[in-house]
Formats: sequence, C-alpha cells, structure tokens
Amino acid sequence: MNYDVIDTQIAPEGQLEVLSKAEVAKLRDNSQGGLYNLFRNCSLAVLNSGNAMDDGKELLERFKSFEISIIQRERGIKLDIKGAPASAFVDGQMIKGIREQLFAVLRDVIFVSNEIQDDPRFDLSTTEGTTDAVFHILRNANVLKPLISPNLVVCWGGHSISRTEYEYTKKVGYQLGLRAMDVCTGCGPGAMKGPMKGATIGHAKQRISGGRYLGITEPGIIAAEAPNPIVNDLVILPDIEKRLEAFVRLGHGIVVFPGGAGTAEEILYLLGILLHPDNAELPFPLVFTGPHSAAPYFEQIDRFISDTLGSEARQRYQVIIDDPVEVARQMQAGIKRVREYRKEKADAYYFNWRLRIDREFQKPFLPTHENMRNLKLQRQQATHLLAANLRRAFSGVVAGNVKEQGILAIEKHGPFEIHGDPDIMASMDALLTSFVDQHRMKLPGKKYIPCYRIIK
Amino acid sequence: MNYDVIDTQIAPEGQLEVLSKAEVAKLRDNSQGGLYNLFRNCSLAVLNSGNAMDDGKELLERFKSFEISIIQRERGIKLDIKGAPASAFVDGQMIKGIREQLFAVLRDVIFVSNEIQDDPRFDLSTTEGTTDAVFHILRNANVLKPLISPNLVVCWGGHSISRTEYEYTKKVGYQLGLRAMDVCTGCGPGAMKGPMKGATIGHAKQRISGGRYLGITEPGIIAAEAPNPIVNDLVILPDIEKRLEAFVRLGHGIVVFPGGAGTAEEILYLLGILLHPDNAELPFPLVFTGPHSAAPYFEQIDRFISDTLGSEARQRYQVIIDDPVEVARQMQAGIKRVREYRKEKADAYYFNWRLRIDREFQKPFLPTHENMRNLKLQRQQATHLLAANLRRAFSGVVAGNVKEQGILAIEKHGPFEIHGDPDIMASMDALLTSFVDQHRMKLPGKKYIPCYRIIK
Amino acid sequence: MNYDVIDTQIAPEGQLEVLSKAEVAKLRDNSQGGLYNLFRNCSLAVLNSGNAMDDGKELLERFKSFEISIIQRERGIKLDIKGAPASAFVDGQMIKGIREQLFAVLRDVIFVSNEIQDDPRFDLSTTEGTTDAVFHILRNANVLKPLISPNLVVCWGGHSISRTEYEYTKKVGYQLGLRAMDVCTGCGPGAMKGPMKGATIGHAKQRISGGRYLGITEPGIIAAEAPNPIVNDLVILPDIEKRLEAFVRLGHGIVVFPGGAGTAEEILYLLGILLHPDNAELPFPLVFTGPHSAAPYFEQIDRFISDTLGSEARQRYQVIIDDPVEVARQMQAGIKRVREYRKEKADAYYFNWRLRIDREFQKPFLPTHENMRNLKLQRQQATHLLAANLRRAFSGVVAGNVKEQGILAIEKHGPFEIHGDPDIMASMDALLTSFVDQHRMKLPGKKYIPCYRIIK
Amino acid sequence: MNYDVIDTQIAPEGQLEVLSKAEVAKLRDNSQGGLYNLFRNCSLAVLNSGNAMDDGKELLERFKSFEISIIQRERGIKLDIKGAPASAFVDGQMIKGIREQLFAVLRDVIFVSNEIQDDPRFDLSTTEGTTDAVFHILRNANVLKPLISPNLVVCWGGHSISRTEYEYTKKVGYQLGLRAMDVCTGCGPGAMKGPMKGATIGHAKQRISGGRYLGITEPGIIAAEAPNPIVNDLVILPDIEKRLEAFVRLGHGIVVFPGGAGTAEEILYLLGILLHPDNAELPFPLVFTGPHSAAPYFEQIDRFISDTLGSEARQRYQVIIDDPVEVARQMQAGIKRVREYRKEKADAYYFNWRLRIDREFQKPFLPTHENMRNLKLQRQQATHLLAANLRRAFSGVVAGNVKEQGILAIEKHGPFEIHGDPDIMASMDALLTSFVDQHRMKLPGKKYIPCYRIIK
Repeated sequence: MNYDVIDTQIAPEGQLEVLSKAEVAKLRDNSQGGLYNLFRNCSLAVLNSGNAMDDGKELLERFKSFEISIIQRERGIKLDIKGAPASAFVDGQMIKGIREQLFAVLRDVIFVSNEIQDDPRFDLSTTEGTTDAVFHILRNANVLKPLISPNLVVCWGGHSISRTEYEYTKKVGYQLGLRAMDVCTGCGPGAMKGPMKGATIGHAKQRISGGRYLGITEPGIIAAEAPNPIVNDLVILPDIEKRLEAFVRLGHGIVVFPGGAGTAEEILYLLGILLHPDNAELPFPLVFTGPHSAAPYFEQIDRFISDTLGSEARQRYQVIIDDPVEVARQMQAGIKRVREYRKEKADAYYFNWRLRIDREFQKPFLPTHENMRNLKLQRQQATHLLAANLRRAFSGVVAGNVKEQGILAIEKHGPFEIHGDPDIMASMDALLTSFVDQHRMKLPGKKYIPCYRIIK
Repeated sequence: MNYDVIDTQIAPEGQLEVLSKAEVAKLRDNSQGGLYNLFRNCSLAVLNSGNAMDDGKELLERFKSFEISIIQRERGIKLDIKGAPASAFVDGQMIKGIREQLFAVLRDVIFVSNEIQDDPRFDLSTTEGTTDAVFHILRNANVLKPLISPNLVVCWGGHSISRTEYEYTKKVGYQLGLRAMDVCTGCGPGAMKGPMKGATIGHAKQRISGGRYLGITEPGIIAAEAPNPIVNDLVILPDIEKRLEAFVRLGHGIVVFPGGAGTAEEILYLLGILLHPDNAELPFPLVFTGPHSAAPYFEQIDRFISDTLGSEARQRYQVIIDDPVEVARQMQAGIKRVREYRKEKADAYYFNWRLRIDREFQKPFLPTHENMRNLKLQRQQATHLLAANLRRAFSGVVAGNVKEQGILAIEKHGPFEIHGDPDIMASMDALLTSFVDQHRMKLPGKKYIPCYRIIK
Repeated sequence: MNYDVIDTQIAPEGQLEVLSKAEVAKLRDNSQGGLYNLFRNCSLAVLNSGNAMDDGKELLERFKSFEISIIQRERGIKLDIKGAPASAFVDGQMIKGIREQLFAVLRDVIFVSNEIQDDPRFDLSTTEGTTDAVFHILRNANVLKPLISPNLVVCWGGHSISRTEYEYTKKVGYQLGLRAMDVCTGCGPGAMKGPMKGATIGHAKQRISGGRYLGITEPGIIAAEAPNPIVNDLVILPDIEKRLEAFVRLGHGIVVFPGGAGTAEEILYLLGILLHPDNAELPFPLVFTGPHSAAPYFEQIDRFISDTLGSEARQRYQVIIDDPVEVARQMQAGIKRVREYRKEKADAYYFNWRLRIDREFQKPFLPTHENMRNLKLQRQQATHLLAANLRRAFSGVVAGNVKEQGILAIEKHGPFEIHGDPDIMASMDALLTSFVDQHRMKLPGKKYIPCYRIIK
Repeated sequence: MNYDVIDTQIAPEGQLEVLSKAEVAKLRDNSQGGLYNLFRNCSLAVLNSGNAMDDGKELLERFKSFEISIIQRERGIKLDIKGAPASAFVDGQMIKGIREQLFAVLRDVIFVSNEIQDDPRFDLSTTEGTTDAVFHILRNANVLKPLISPNLVVCWGGHSISRTEYEYTKKVGYQLGLRAMDVCTGCGPGAMKGPMKGATIGHAKQRISGGRYLGITEPGIIAAEAPNPIVNDLVILPDIEKRLEAFVRLGHGIVVFPGGAGTAEEILYLLGILLHPDNAELPFPLVFTGPHSAAPYFEQIDRFISDTLGSEARQRYQVIIDDPVEVARQMQAGIKRVREYRKEKADAYYFNWRLRIDREFQKPFLPTHENMRNLKLQRQQATHLLAANLRRAFSGVVAGNVKEQGILAIEKHGPFEIHGDPDIMASMDALLTSFVDQHRMKLPGKKYIPCYRIIK
C-alpha cells in the first residue's frame, strides 16, 4: 500500500530557532554518537499524528523515505522535510500545532544530549541526580510555570477505548476546563486525546486563552502514541521512568480512565510511590473514573490492587462512575489541599520536590526476556517494592505490544515469561485476560496475540 | 416544577463598562419608553443558554423572579442579578462567556435605543438609512475588522437536528477552522452550535487564538435560540430583517445545513437578494450540505426552489453531500473570489456595501393573521419579489412556532392562513409537511401542532 | 520663505478605520455645513508638531497648499495627504505618533458633529447636557479607563518658558512617572511637553509599557499648541470650555508650572469651580511649582489670587519651589485621598461626576470686543462668579495673542478694552505686565504687542 | 559618611524564577568554589545604579553590610536583600528596571558557572569553543532575536563626558530611535546612558513598545559602570574579552562617542579584528561622532590610529561632527549593507558568525605589572597583532583606573610600566595625556593620578 507524502520547509515561530553551529552539526550526524536517527524517528511520529496505529515498527516501514534536516538561514534555522505523511497537512500547509511539536522534539533531543547526558553535573545513578535531570528537562521545555496556581490534572488511560468511553473522557475534560484546570496526558489517541478536546471547549467558554494541553512522552512510545495537535506543550523525556517521574512531579492530581497494560503500569507506579512511608502525609488526589459500562473494569482493577498491594493502597484513590462533574469537583478539592500543603511547606507549586521517589522507580527497566523472567513478584518484600516489580512486568507487556524493540524481541524469542507467587500470578492473569477480552491491548480491528506467558 | 436559580453580581472586563448617568437611568426605567424589559428578557435568554427550550414564552414563565439591574461603582458599572438560571454557573461562578454576552446585550440595547432609534440621522424608511443603521450597530459591536482578510463563513441550519446531522456540522466547522476560517451563526443549539465547536478544535490545532465565533440574533428569537457560550462576539439587531441583513453584509460565504422553517426563510431571503439583477455579477459562495441521511432533505429544498424560483436560482448554490473537506475547500475558493472582487472594486472586506438589497427585504414584516393572509404568493411578480413574499410566509411560521408574540396570537386566533397560486401552495405544503415529519419544527420530545393552514 | 512639504498616504492601525459612506461624504464636504475645513486645519496643526509657532493664522498661510482627503479601500479608509510639513516625517515616513493623532482628529471631528451636535439627546444649554456631551466625547475617544486606579496628573503651564523651567518640568514628570502616575496636558511645547518626556523615562525605568500621555485640545488652540508626538491619547473637544471641563473631570490632581495668560485662565477656572460651596468637601490636589527662578512668579500669582478671590481660595493649593520629589509625593498623597473619597461615594474613578461646575463656567465665551468690554469684573458678586469673569478676561487675552480669529479681530478693531473695580484692574495689570516682562506671552524672539488695554 | 540603605524582598516577574535545589545551594555557597561573592558584588553594583562613582573598591567599602540571599517559595524564588543603597528605591519600592537586572545577574552567574565553566563541551582554549560559549551565554540571556531585522547599534564612549557631549549622545540616540534602531552599550553613565534616553523618546514617538536597551558588562567593570535602569536586557559576560566579543557579534554597527582609555581599548579591539585579512569584505558600519567641541578629540584619535595602524585602518570608519541625523542615516545605510550581506551568505542576523576573531583577541589579558611590562608594542608584527597589544595596554590602564584588583595592585606596586617603539610610545603618551587634560580618565571632581608610566 502506498501512503501520500509531502515535502516542505518550515520555520519555527517561537523559541529555539537559534542553534549554534555545533548543535546543528550534531543533529546532522547520523553516526553512532549522532542524534539524527533519534530526531528523525520522533519527528516522523509527530507527523503521523491522528493516524490510528499502535506499532512503532510499522510506522518506520511505512515512511521509509522520510528525511528531515536543518538549514541555517539569516533568521535562524528551518527544517527541510521530505516524505512526510500527508495527514499532517491541510491543503499543503502543515498544521501549526504539528509544526510546533517538531521544534519541541528538536529542543528536547538537543537538550537531553548536550546538557544532560554529556554533562558531568548530573549523576544519573542517584535519586537526586535523576530528579535534577528531570527538573532541567522540564524547565528547558518551559513547562514549569511558577505564577500559575496548581491546576494541572494528569489524565491516564488507554489509547484503545470504546466510543462511549471516549465520549466520557471528553466530558470529564470539559468539566475540568470549565473549572480552569489544565490537562496533561501521555499523548496519543483515546483517553489521552478526549480530555484535551473537552478541556478546549471548556476553556473556550470560560475565555481562557492560555489553556495548557501538555503531552509527555518518550522516544520509545511516541511512534505508537503520537501527540495530537491540540497538545501545545510537548516534552520528550529520555526514557519511560523519567517520563513517569515527570507526570508525578508536574501533575497536581491524576485521573485514570479505563486502559490496558500501560494504564496498569502507571497505576502501579503511582501507588508504589505513594505507599512509600515518607509520602504518607503528602496529599495527591487520585480518581479512577469511567462511564457506567466501565464499572466492571474498575472493579477488576480495584480487586487486583487489593489482592496484591492490600487495603492501604485503596485509601489513596477513589472510584467515581459516570459523573464528570463530581470528578472535576473532587480534583478541584484535592488540588486545593495540594496547594495548601505546598504553601505551608514553601514547596514549589510547579514541581513536586517533596514527593519521595524510591530509586527502584527511577532505574530504567529494559524489558529483555531475561529481565522479565527474573522479576521478583513475591510477597516477601515491602509493598512499595512489590509495586515496583509489578510495574515492570506491565511495562514489559507494553513494550512487547507496541514498541519497536519489544516487538522485534518477541518475534525472535517468543513471548516473555513472567512468574511469581501463585496468587499474584492468578490476579495478574485475570487482569491481563480481561484486558484482552475487552480489546484494550490493541487498537480495534486487530487480533491480539499475547506477548507474554504467565507461569503459574 | 422548580428551577435552580442563583443571585450574583458581575463586573465587565472589556468595553462598555463606562456608562453615563443618563444611560443608566434609561436602562433602569421600566416604563413604556424605558429599556428595562427588553434588557431583562434578552439577558434571561443569554443566561438560559444550553437548556433545550424553543419557546420564549415558556422561558419567561419559568424564571418569573429573574431581575437584573445596574449598579454604579468606582470602577464602572456592575450588574446585579437575581434569580438567574443555575445552568449559567459552574460551582457558583458565572461562565465567563455568558458574562461577556450579558454585556453585549447591554451594549446593543443601549446603542440601538440611543444612537439609532432616537437619532434623526438614520432614516429607517429608506434603503440607505437602514443599511447605515445596520452598519453602525455592527461597528459599535466591534465586529467590523478591517485588517482581517475575508474569512467569515455564515452557517445556517436548524436548532433541532439529529445527532448524525449535528456531528456532521461539527466536522464541517472543524475543516473550516483548520483552514483559518471563522464562523458566524444565528446562535442557539444544533446547526448553530456544532460548527463553532468544530472550529474551536480546528483553531486550537492551528494555534489560532483569536478565532471569531460570531452570533447574530434579535430580541424576538434570542429566547428560543440562546447563544452558546462559545460565541465570543454577540450582536443583537433590533429586528429579524436587520439581523438577516447583518448576515449577508458580514458573511463572505454561507453554508446551509438541514433545518426547518427558519432555515427555509434564510435561504429564500438570500436567493431573493442574489436574484436581483444588480447582484448578478457579485460572487457569493453558497453551499447546502449535510450527511448522507440529509440527501433527501436537500433534494426537497432543491425541488422547491426549482418549482418556485426557477433554474436561475439554482445557479447560485451547490449541494455537497457528506464531504466536510470539500465544503471547506469550496468555501475557501469562493471567498478567494469574493476577496478579489472587493479588492478590484475597492469595496470593504468587512461589509458588503455593493450587495443590493431591495427595500422589500428590509421592511420589518409583522406576522399578524391579517398580514399572513394577505401575502402575495403568486407568479405574477418579479422572481425576487416572489422570494421576498415566500420568505415572509416562512417567517410567520417561525414566529408561530417559537416566538412569544406569535404563540400568543395563535393561541388566541388559531393557525395562520396562507394562500396563493395552487402549484406554489402545493410545493410549500410538501416542504412544510416534510419538515414536520422529520421533526424539524420543534425540539425532539414535543409533538408539533402546526401554526399554519395552507389554503389551496 | 519656502517650507519643505511631503505628499503621502497613510493607513490607520487602530480604531476608527471603519467609516460609513455617509461619514466619508460629510468629511469630504467643504460647504458650510461640511466638516472639511475643520478637519483640514486640525490635521495641519498636528502635522506641524515640533515647530515653534504660536500663531494659528501664520500656520495656515505657511502651508496654503495643504490638502487631506479620505480614500475608501478594501481594508478600510486611508488618508491622502498633500503638502504636509516635512518635519512630521523621518526619512520620508510619517512619525507614527503623528499618524495616530491624525486619526484621533478624524475620530473627534466626526463624533462631535454626528453624535453630539446633530443629536437632540444632548441639550447643550443645560449643565447636565453639557457634562453628558463631554463624557460621551471622552468615552468615544477611549480615554475613560475604569480599571486604572486614579493616577492622572494634569500639568498646566506655559508653552513659552525658559530652558531652566523646561528642564524642571521634565524632572517633575520623571518623578511622577517613577511613581506610576500618568500625565495629561493641553498639548503644545514647553510646560506641556516636558512632563511627558520626563514621565516617559520614568515609565521606562519602571517597565510601565502602557503609560498614558494624554493631550486635550480644541480647534481654536491646536494650531498654536500642536500635540507633540509623545501624546498617545489625543482628544479634541469642540470649544475651550468643554476642554477645561475635560481637564477637571478626568484629572485626579493638577500641577501648575509657570505660564502666561492661558495658565492664569486655567487657574481661575479651577479655583472658581473649587470655590463653589458644593465642592467644599471634594478633595482635589493642586500644586503650583517651578524652579528657584520661578519663585517670584508664583508669589505674584499667589498675591493676585489673594487680592481678587481672597484667602479661602489660597487653601485649595500649595506652592512648592524647586522640589520635584516633593511635588510627586504631594500628588500621590492627594490622589490617594481622591481615591478614598470616590470609593466611599461610589463615584467613578475615571470621571469626576461629583464636581459641581456652575453653568457660568460652561457657557462658551466668545471674546469679541463687545463681550470683553462688558465683562463684570467687580466685587459685588459671589467669589466663584468673579473667578468666572476673570477667567473670561484672560481667555480673551489668549485669543488675541494666538488664535486666528482673535488676531484678526485685534488687527481690525485694536486692542480689547477691559475694565472693572480699580483694585482688581490694578492687580490684573500688574500680573499681565509681569507676563510681558518675563516673555510669557509669546515664544522668544518675537516682540509682544499687547492685545488688550486695561481701563482703570 | 553614612549611606542610606533599605532591606527588602523581591520576586521576579519574568524568567528564571525557577531554580533547582542544586542551583540554589551553589548560590548560597560562599566558599572558594561557590558563587556567593560574585553574585553579591554584581548585585550591589546594579543596586548602586545612578550614583556617580567609578571605583569598584569604594563601592564595596561603602555598603559593607549589604547581603543578598535566595529564598524558595511556592511560586519560585525570591531575593532577600539587606542593606541595599536607598537610591535604588522610590518611596521604599525598588525600581522595577533594577529588579529585573538583579535577576539577570542571577541568571548569568548561574549559567556561566554551571553550563559554561563546568561543562567539558566548551573548550575555552580554542577560538570555536570561546565563540560557542559567548553564543550560549547570549542565547540563554534571550538576546538573540531571530525575527528582528538587523537594527542593533552599539554605542561606545566615556562614562565621564561633558554636559554638551552628553546632550549630543542623547540626540544621536533620539535619531536612532526615530528610525527604529535599538541601542546596546556597556552600561554605566555618560555616553552609555545618553543614547538610551534619547532612543526611549524616539521609540515613544514612533510607538515602538519593544525597544531594546541592551547592556553588556562583566564582573570587573560593573561596579564602576552600573547599568542604568532603562537597560532592559542586561548580560554579564565572564570577562572583558568575551564582553568585547559579545559587542561585535551582536551589534550591526557601532557608534563611538568621545571617551577615555576604555573607549580607546574598544576602538583598537574592533579595528584589530576588522584588519584581519579574512574580514576584508565584511561590512561593518563604524562612525566616530561628537559635538563641535569634540572635533579636536577625534582628530587626535584619528592621528593615533593613522600613526600606529596606518591608513588601511582609517578606511573602516568615518568621522561625523555635530550631525546626529547624519549619524543615524549612515548607521541605517550601513546596516542595510550588513543585512544584504548576511542574507546572501545565509548568515544569522542575530549573531555575526562570519566575523573572524583572532585568538589573540579572545585570550583573557590579566593586567599584572609583569604582563603590562612585557607587552609587545613594536612595529615588527602584523598590524592586527599590534592592535591586539595596544588594546591590552589600554585595558591595563582602565583596570588601574577603575577596577578593584587593578587599583589594589597599583597601590601596592606603583604605576604600570609600558614600553615599545619610541614613535608608538610618543603617540600613546600624547593620547593619554590629552585624556587626562580633558578629564576623561575619572569622573569630574576627582584629581587623576596616572596608573601608568610610559617608558620611552
């Protein structure tokens, strides 16, 4: 099959139109140490926005001839683009939101390489160093806004959800927007797009012109979950753990919609952190919500958490079914407590410094067959560490489902093997099976072939 | 039944927060010559936005205790509001879009009274004087924007349409918004709201922050078709004929979605004008469009026009079924011709001075039983005059359906009687009957009792 | 002598670029009832800004070939200008401040003619009607700003002052600007320009980007006292009495620098109003100030006031010599009292509604020889009425000095004759003589020939 | 003598209100490797703005109790300031321009330390590495503006000049401002302040709201030449050579007013660079100008250049006496050539990458007695290298005159000894002597004791 492509040149309108000669050279360099491939692939993902496709490998094959390069001009740089997906254009003009996002990709690729990875200042083997790196990436992306009162709601949930669920995410976003809250998601379609569309309408009615629709992603997932063009602040963190840390340090509250393995990963990550004894006092509003039809889904999630992490974990969230207004009110009330707490502690509104994140949640997890097999999924460990390992298990499933490297590994070595305490395995199996049954693992229209095997 | 109400005080943020003592006195005056009732009723309609109700009389009865008054403060005026519909508020705060619209009501009520009706400068019995008055009302409302290139698409269509048709109007609005076109409608729900929501998303993706969502209404219709809060420029013309003139002088092109009698009135008004020999050369893009399911509807409309106004009239529009992208492209192409024409003639981009509007289309038509009975619906007249009279017939049907005065008259004297040439009557009967069958005369859930009788 | 002239076309950038066909026709009309001559002469004055010349007649003779006309274009109107003074241009481009002022002239000429003079709503024979007219002219000029806290200092003083005095007015303006106060003057050079230059620097240091430099003038004086281009809000009132009313209704405090007959007129006007019993409680900060060298001048003024209006009048002002910081502080403190008073009375911050202005101070005074001769300058009247008549006497002297009509009348009939109580005449003679001696009646380099004769 | 001081806390309004924990810790650290002293001393200099004092040592002694520290708050950082010079305040409020500058100091101190000096990416021992560092400092300070057409005029000249010369610099600045040019100087009083004041008035008349008044300084000079508060972009380069490089890479043209040793240093620096063969084609407008009274001064400079660098050097500048309009026109014409050249070469408008700066002009020169004695001031070298050495000689004189370290060294070891070819020494002696005679070495009112001795 052939896909329409377009060639174009685009100029930035905002920041980072000013690059040094050395920076341009590095971006053009497609050798091992160069940044070209990273930059190219993330750019392609951004340009492919709006096309349902949850397989990064497929994307790269579909637009093999795609090329992007930087040109120096008297007014700064331009991007010269060849073979871009035609869907990024309206009557030959690239959609402006996508244009902005390409320059965000450029900004983050350069910054992470030059200022984080090559700079001895950041010791990424420590908790402090890692958090500092996340802070600097976010600051450089200009998303730390000290003058805005806490109002950022992170919305998590699946990219593959039903029409009813999607409409529901829009309604929640609308109610958030009416109450002047901003929305942050992981980019992509489904539950990550709906709240932004809803909030856009809510903001329009409230004449809020600077509404933020913040998308946080990482190179491994961006191909499968391209930012939709409403996203007006895009940040690309270098790996999934820093992306998760960005969510919880930026967001003032989190709403979880129905989703699949990725959503489960996010829930486990957050609960694991909140269960750390140092965070016991810290307010962090967390709501699980969906339409009536999603009630069984959240019962399952709730049961899985109860079975594996215990009742303490259940204190940290509330489940609200089919009531967007109530979701928005609970978020508003919870964020008010966050605000008071930060004020009392003189902690920044824009970055949750006081949230203690255990090193286990920061260490990048590479979902190889060996690492997956060796995961410690037993009860003989602190609850928050069990949560960390469960998180990794789901992370591996996501990789096997939608990330290029994961898919290639599964193709070569067969499904991942996961084992642990029998009751935990039973819970996990039940949950994953229900995801498959509910078509939450893949976009509709594709049959799902599991990338994992649970060894009971 | 009881309706939730809220009391509040609001301050304006933009213009017209500065009133003279005389202006305030006049607004407070609820005697015959005062403006209080007009101001109160239009304000109530704005506050009732979003509540499906197409009967102005019902609204006034529902919120009998509603009061609005003006207070002078050191920073200008405030509005003191008692008994406002709770739906205009989010957690006790009035939605800002609605707040703005209340001040637009105030602005237009004052201006029309002080500067138009009481000023000998405007001779409203002449074509020039009437057009001048429309111009001044629009200028005072700050909607004549000389620096914006022609991009304003008027969308007409019913307030009571099916879900499929509504989704379609959103898609058309989205495609218009992606192409940087702005949207103007007659306010109200359905086909008047969908294009604005769609355009809002399109503008967000294109980072167009100043998108215009222009609502044009008049005191008789505003109760039934309240502006939705996305409308960020609201203008209240003094009567239906000036409102129609505002549409065609401001808009650079018109899209017609399915609708009922009001939509038919608008189509006849516009075709009647375009058929005037003086306008033969004038470009004016006009597209009738809807989803697949609306194809029969437009066939009927097309046939009615063909039967009554002849084939020349059919040259002035095109019908596009189920293709939002094509609608947007045709509008864009048509508006380009408008732009070239105005440039060539040095005519203003922001006001269609050269469009010749016959006096017959400006004279306010009062749909009394007598006037309706006396309408000249015969072929022995110029086509554009027949169009004018057909327009009046549909106007009367709208009044009988949704306007307070019309409803009261029907309650008292029974249905309007309409007669004319038998074939014209047959066409009209067929059209109106199909509107009834398709539930286009009233909001769903209410049985429609015709307010007219066709005498064949 | 020949003066460099330039032809050009200019487009507006802000408001009023949108005129109706009727408005354009009226401006083009150079018949009796048309506005062309008024518009032309005021425009020429604006364009002559910066050229020392205090004789309106001379200006008109110097640029006889000057023409200005309005062209309709697709983006609104343009001004077509022929024979404009070259000093309004920098390398062939008209200075933007002057461009803006031309459109302010256009705006006010149209508004006063269409909306004030031709509108039966304003009964200019009453106090209320006149004040209402002043209010509407100011509102239409967009200078009533309800959201700005009281901060507008009116600076009065001569157009012909010494270098030392001029530098002093800059220092006062600088201290006002540092304290976020805005400046309003009567346009023209000298004491009307210095405070604005100083305030510009003060505002720049305080990063106040919206500083207001408001110029208030009238057709008879604008030729002699053209606005300097810093003036970013120019309003042309129809006559000198409405101009004076605009000063005292807009300003929150007044600083008087040394000046000549015009300044004396302004002082008498203001004191006459403040002496009205109804204004006894009203706070209105008033400071007379100048450098050391101006100390004798203010002693003379002080003595004249004491001699004619008595000691009560002296309570309403303070004299501060050579202390710009103290002047600014006194203004700030006085304006704080104004703010509190208005807040308490719920009176507008932006328009001094509560100030009672006797009808005597509103009636336009035509300084004919007869009217001047008949002035009642006797003690047998209320003090504030004596002030009103003294004001008229000085107004006549200004007209005879710098206004076209006055100069022509003097050329024809000889000097005005002024008479009254001998001691008042003696005081007046002393004051005027000292003005002549100090070169305050004319720009330096010209010998002053008195336009009046005091009959003792 | 006692100096008034004030304690306060200030919050930033723009950027860099967001610091990481590590950055705050480093700024608080007053140990050897910490930044506290640097930050404190530069902050004090900024706060002392407007006080004539050209001796950094004196400043530090005068405000010994001055302290500045950083506080973390929920909306970002604040500065806690104790013992600040009262002159930075108006009625107890810090002037906003000064407030902004304090945060610019903070920004640059952090950036240079963290991102430049501690980052292995910048090899400051190479030409490319040094230029790259200058580029990054300027980019981080947000002064590289790609969308602005070339319009930045660097103004050099003395901080100690006569009233006539000062008024002249204002007039030149005014003419530059009227022509929409922006101004960059080295901060401080005299010729570095006048052009900014003039340009502010010019910009106000042209309604240019975003006029740039760029100050470029370095820690060693900032105490003696504090930025005046009009400076709205302040950048602190780490040393004098990088400061000079910033001037010539940012500026599109340079105007030199009369000055002393510092001005001579700047002239020699620029001519030395322009004489490099690689720069032969490069357009770079350079004008020496002053009022009539400064004519002899420029004759002397011209003669010195002619004597030492030869006639080729004289081709690179023009001398314009007493004609501000002509200066502005020449700058505009020259900058037009710069623009065309950069466009042709696709070189950035905002950074002069193509200007070749020899390594000799980048190496920091430490004016110790030994280094001064060893300067090679002979003809047996390429002209541009002789210029480099002459530049160093004048740089040493500046240090001995006004910089803390230089003054201390002179106090201890006596005057610097300078020697070289006799004719060069004679020219230099004549020039320096004339500077002394004209009071260009120190602010008026102080007797100048030479810090150097020329060994002939």
